[in-house]
Amino acid sequence: MREIELRRSIRKYKSKPVEMSIINSLIESARLAPSGSNTQPWHFIVITDDKIKNDVATVSHNQKWMLTAPVFIVCVADIASRIANSEDIELDETSPQFELKQIIRDTSIAIEHIVLNAITFDLGTCWVAWFTQKEIRSVLGIPGNKFVVSILTVGYPDENPNPRRRKDLKEIIHINKW
Amino acid sequence: MREIELRRSIRKYKSKPVEMSIINSLIESARLAPSGSNTQPWHFIVITDDKIKNDVATVSHNQKWMLTAPVFIVCVADIASRIANSEDIELDETSPQFELKQIIRDTSIAIEHIVLNAITFDLGTCWVAWFTQKEIRSVLGIPGNKFVVSILTVGYPDENPNPRRRKDLKEIIHINKW
Repeated sequence: MREIELRRSIRKYKSKPVEMSIINSLIESARLAPSGSNTQPWHFIVITDDKIKNDVATVSHNQKWMLTAPVFIVCVADIASRIANSEDIELDETSPQFELKQIIRDTSIAIEHIVLNAITFDLGTCWVAWFTQKEIRSVLGIPGNKFVVSILTVGYPDENPNPRRRKDLKEIIHINKW
Repeated sequence: MREIELRRSIRKYKSKPVEMSIINSLIESARLAPSGSNTQPWHFIVITDDKIKNDVATVSHNQKWMLTAPVFIVCVADIASRIANSEDIELDETSPQFELKQIIRDTSIAIEHIVLNAITFDLGTCWVAWFTQKEIRSVLGIPGNKFVVSILTVGYPDENPNPRRRKDLKEIIHINKW
């Protein structure tokens, strides 16, 4: 599939802005993702404000390259989709709930729909997940019963990286049993 | 994107087998998925053996419809990709490790590459995750430091379901802050 073959993690972007109609199309593709019991646990915070982008990059280990992207999409999994009265839950990196694993799985599917659909608009993206829940939630006012799965940087690529090394197919494929 | 719009969860398949070359193409698309620090934590067990398919469906709450699919792909996340000397770890639904969340995220991305690429071959798939780690690992001889993220059923669709209801875009999109 063309989009899968062309996808790269892009860490340098042109300053050209991205039309909001395109951002809506990207999130529309996330909206169509499958999820367990159709729970749709995902939320997407679209960030174009320079001050807020700066705060987000700062809590992402101050990765300066992120700021070349005109748009960030902060991708959030909501455990309220699976646990009633979850308001008192404070999720973090070592939370044990099975439901957290389920919403991370489903939100990751939706995020990758954005990543692949971006290719059809000649946009580049990069998954960024180097932050703590506490810090990223604090910067954006996200309640404790949500888990930030990823920040996607989005913009027109200003680099053309080679594919990274992958394991051989025979290292990852098994037939009929482990 | 065509594949995203056409994708449905298919729970009824034609008996027509799927060529192994196509299965290899599907797993090749998973192989190209991005992963944190390029750790590629995924493994795929391709099951065409009727006895083993039956055992897998049985521990999946005996969902008989699964057996209409000629192929299952059991999708496994390996915590050894992130934790050294992990052989004594016995993962289950409530394991707290951050690394488990990371490998579930990355393996989910790779699985959805299979799901979307399947559409280009006119194949249908369904994510199945209704089993316990203990039972599915036991059936397939998978070590305890691996976590089964999903079983994908794969085959030529023998149904054409309508899209399921989705939340409106405005329920899942936020601008600049939560």
